[in-house]
Amino acid sequence: MQGQYYLRRNLYFILFEVVEVLRLTKHSYFAAHDKESMKMVLDAAERIAATSMRPYLKETDQHPPVLVNGIIKVHPALQEYYKAFCASGLMAACFDEKFGGQQLPKTIYAAADFIVGNAHNGFEMFTSLSNGAAKLLTSFASETLIKEFALKILDGTYTATMCLTETQAGSSLSDITTAATPSQKGSYKIKGQKIFISAGDHDVTDNIIHLVLARVKGAPNGVKGISLFVVPKKINALSNDVVALAVYHKMGQRSTPAMHLEFGATDNCTGYLIGEEGKGLTYMFQMMNNARLGVGLAGTYIATAAYYASLQYAKERPQGRRPDTRNTNEPPVTIIHHPDVRRMLLLQKTIAEGSLALVLYCYSFMDKEQIATTAEKQRCTDLLELLTPVAKTYGAEMGIVAVNNGLQVLGGYGYTEDFILEQLARDVRIMSLYEGTTGIQSIALLGRQVLANKGQSLQYWKEEVMKAIEAAQHFANLQCYADWLLHKVEAIFKVSMHLIDRTTKTTKEIVLADANLYMELFGLVTIGWQWLLQATVAQQQLTNGCEAAEDQKFYRSKLQAMKFFFHYELRKTRGLIARLMDDEVITALDGDDLLM
Amino acid sequence: MQGQYYLRRNLYFILFEVVEVLRLTKHSYFAAHDKESMKMVLDAAERIAATSMRPYLKETDQHPPVLVNGIIKVHPALQEYYKAFCASGLMAACFDEKFGGQQLPKTIYAAADFIVGNAHNGFEMFTSLSNGAAKLLTSFASETLIKEFALKILDGTYTATMCLTETQAGSSLSDITTAATPSQKGSYKIKGQKIFISAGDHDVTDNIIHLVLARVKGAPNGVKGISLFVVPKKINALSNDVVALAVYHKMGQRSTPAMHLEFGATDNCTGYLIGEEGKGLTYMFQMMNNARLGVGLAGTYIATAAYYASLQYAKERPQGRRPDTRNTNEPPVTIIHHPDVRRMLLLQKTIAEGSLALVLYCYSFMDKEQIATTAEKQRCTDLLELLTPVAKTYGAEMGIVAVNNGLQVLGGYGYTEDFILEQLARDVRIMSLYEGTTGIQSIALLGRQVLANKGQSLQYWKEEVMKAIEAAQHFANLQCYADWLLHKVEAIFKVSMHLIDRTTKTTKEIVLADANLYMELFGLVTIGWQWLLQATVAQQQLTNGCEAAEDQKFYRSKLQAMKFFFHYELRKTRGLIARLMDDEVITALDGDDLLM
Repeated sequence: MQGQYYLRRNLYFILFEVVEVLRLTKHSYFAAHDKESMKMVLDAAERIAATSMRPYLKETDQHPPVLVNGIIKVHPALQEYYKAFCASGLMAACFDEKFGGQQLPKTIYAAADFIVGNAHNGFEMFTSLSNGAAKLLTSFASETLIKEFALKILDGTYTATMCLTETQAGSSLSDITTAATPSQKGSYKIKGQKIFISAGDHDVTDNIIHLVLARVKGAPNGVKGISLFVVPKKINALSNDVVALAVYHKMGQRSTPAMHLEFGATDNCTGYLIGEEGKGLTYMFQMMNNARLGVGLAGTYIATAAYYASLQYAKERPQGRRPDTRNTNEPPVTIIHHPDVRRMLLLQKTIAEGSLALVLYCYSFMDKEQIATTAEKQRCTDLLELLTPVAKTYGAEMGIVAVNNGLQVLGGYGYTEDFILEQLARDVRIMSLYEGTTGIQSIALLGRQVLANKGQSLQYWKEEVMKAIEAAQHFANLQCYADWLLHKVEAIFKVSMHLIDRTTKTTKEIVLADANLYMELFGLVTIGWQWLLQATVAQQQLTNGCEAAEDQKFYRSKLQAMKFFFHYELRKTRGLIARLMDDEVITALDGDDLLM
Repeated sequence: MQGQYYLRRNLYFILFEVVEVLRLTKHSYFAAHDKESMKMVLDAAERIAATSMRPYLKETDQHPPVLVNGIIKVHPALQEYYKAFCASGLMAACFDEKFGGQQLPKTIYAAADFIVGNAHNGFEMFTSLSNGAAKLLTSFASETLIKEFALKILDGTYTATMCLTETQAGSSLSDITTAATPSQKGSYKIKGQKIFISAGDHDVTDNIIHLVLARVKGAPNGVKGISLFVVPKKINALSNDVVALAVYHKMGQRSTPAMHLEFGATDNCTGYLIGEEGKGLTYMFQMMNNARLGVGLAGTYIATAAYYASLQYAKERPQGRRPDTRNTNEPPVTIIHHPDVRRMLLLQKTIAEGSLALVLYCYSFMDKEQIATTAEKQRCTDLLELLTPVAKTYGAEMGIVAVNNGLQVLGGYGYTEDFILEQLARDVRIMSLYEGTTGIQSIALLGRQVLANKGQSLQYWKEEVMKAIEAAQHFANLQCYADWLLHKVEAIFKVSMHLIDRTTKTTKEIVLADANLYMELFGLVTIGWQWLLQATVAQQQLTNGCEAAEDQKFYRSKLQAMKFFFHYELRKTRGLIARLMDDEVITALDGDDLLM
């Protein structure tokens, strides 16, 4: 409960004080919204979370949906959640008015999504997949397809999925073989199998709209031969030859059925082309980019749930005594008194709140992109391209670390089903795999954003970070942290220039070999920036003389967390920088494979 | 299968070439053993592993034992394993001949245990608990108790447990309240509840021997009031008032029932005092120290299983193309060709093999302690006291990291029950909690081994590390790594002296606050030492001109892994050292708690 109060307080802080989302409402596109209406959106999300999500988190893990005679039945609470989410207007909230939407800033939608996912990360998947699919359709599909499918997804009649992965094509989408054959009626016959399709079958809605990557007969090899199709589970209430072959048994996120689907087993599966042939992957990347940020957010909301659960436990659980007063005649202290428990809690807090700040910052750039002049737009786009893999990976990888620290706070109890931590640890583990593994994200960051464009988007990033550093330098107690961050920004440039230079001297494979370390370095410095931003706003409020004791405590808590992040986490950059500047080739393959 | 071959090759390397266990056999105590007989012990372990363990790993996870009407029934394979392990002579192998043992070096027993636990980490728990309990009894209990209980544990008639934790006393054993009241017959009446008792109830054997920490009525508060009792489940085939109240539902290690037990619910539970009253914790620490090394070993054998499983997958799974030849008309490469996959595999290998080398090194010091003169004994004991928490924590914490990298290698498949990785990730997660959490181990290392004895055991440790550094300096290609390690040893001394000095200036709480970081630093440098040791032996063999191509490859693989460890892992010490030398107080409690 205390966690719920603080979760909201922190969201308001990031939204209204750090990201300053209200500035958007000066633009006509967002003019219908104000602070009160935005808060009401979050209230609506919390009502849904409290009613049909949070109470069912454990139950739906223990009784995952099973496939019986080709049919998946889900928990009634999921159906209730889905209806409530759409009925509240949240599903369509960020869409243009012409699609029945409210033109709500995506930043606010993401905050609502955070509340919902924090309560039940498995149910959230259903609405976010539908939301992303509707966005893709309204962006790239024909009027007819929008009317027939997108609008019905937005009003809650249909749910939707993204069907990319095949058995032989996971990280390598260019190897997709699902086939699309043009048919007489202007549509296509789809044939192939897709795996790991989240929410790929269920009884939440009667129909499910699959967005399927496939290759039109005769199309070229590789990504340029891939097209995107709308493939409904049913057409006119009749089966469209989409069969649920199997449901995967997963380590976590067990309430969300991940399906193995077969399209066109009896050659009767109809698909409708979205946009033009051969552009499928470009369209899908819009949904993927949203989904990548969504995964960063998911790592964050699960980490947040784990943090509050372990914080509450630490405040209530008596065990041991403080080392300077070790007297067994005195009662034990609560474990929050032990520095190492506090370290694990502060680590969780800095990961969860730092990651949330970054993800919402990214969403605010999506909103800015929406209303930007042509000149400004490219800068927003480039920054988003740079930061999306970072936000995805930091939220995923460090979300896993955070939740495991939460489990550790509970000791042996954390390992049992008596508390929620073990489930959250299983749930969050998927995040470094969803929507491109950490390895893939890291190559995207180093290869495409740094090496390929010779550091142009890095320059935009530096401009943003420098704004935060300059603002922090106005406060005496923040100056050393501003300098510290500046030093790390310079290190990133030094490392990047070293790697760019190295591309001229050796193979791409060798330069990209340590992309994961580059990602870790970049993530740490980026979150350091987000913490300096938060600390500067907090210090400004304290300097301005905020009066409420609760607020003062809140801002001081932000300053403490920032310090923790710099003194403990940011220091990890030292080893990473040393390795990235070191040219010894170790992981690249040599002639005789020594891995045994 | 290839994994099994390599596992044995690596064991032989560490046992016979690095630790040189055969040197022990020059002493009369171990004179009955030679290389062939030692290999036969490992063969026996592998036969048991292959027959009644490995095939049941997944099945016993999916169908954990349940408590029905106060009775736990386990999988028949577990009963078969237990019988076979005892029948093979392994259970009593390390015991004195007078107890029916073979005086086998513990180092060889640990290697056999590694084989067994690698095949099924849950079943292994049963034999290792019994083994540790028998050792405790033969060390401290009366002739009568040894005859009645220890010998029957050693011949497989009984199993045994260790009963320490109570609901209010987990990390803080001094708060134990289970009561022992002297009765007329020279025994005690035991009353209290114990939780998280691994193998605490089952039908593997008809009787279970519990070693129970309890407080004799009137004993002083704290650890000095704690005594240790033998409490059988049954006496003369009749119930001894030990009731299985509940079985915990755990994230992993699900085949091993962790029990909530009640002793003396109807005041009819008899216990027999071991040794003297008030010395219970001292005796229990013998078993605990063995168990701590055992947990380090368990993290290691699970990490090894994950490494071989992911290595095999990486060699078989085609996906993607190498960055310098990205041509989708060519077939994909197997993923072992991708540097980041190789990084994840090398990380696993260096953790698993580095940790194994350290754990076996510790066991070899137990063997040396066994035959040492009085003068040498204290040095062995001090080194073991220093290294036990390190070996436990590195194996546990880095075992978790290794297995998660193994899961990551498999991509989405790693998250499903179709492969073993997700189970191993759940199984290994307990290791940082068993037998004292990482926080407790870290305070033991920094507080007792460094601060309390002003660095004396550190000095012994340095002598050992220096031997390895000097040996490595004979080889040109190892000199830079020898220097590198020397530099890190000096850094540990600098940090340690800084912390010792700080105890005079501030509170114990503040000096111990970063004990976990000190542990991480110490673990990294210690494993760096173990890798330098291995690399030096490997280089020596190559220099000597070993002829078999397989052997050459094996030794070169060791050199590559050592390099990986230094260039990637040892570099993490930089940030840790910076933090440990930095006096800013952040995690210690201030007056107004800002954690929210």
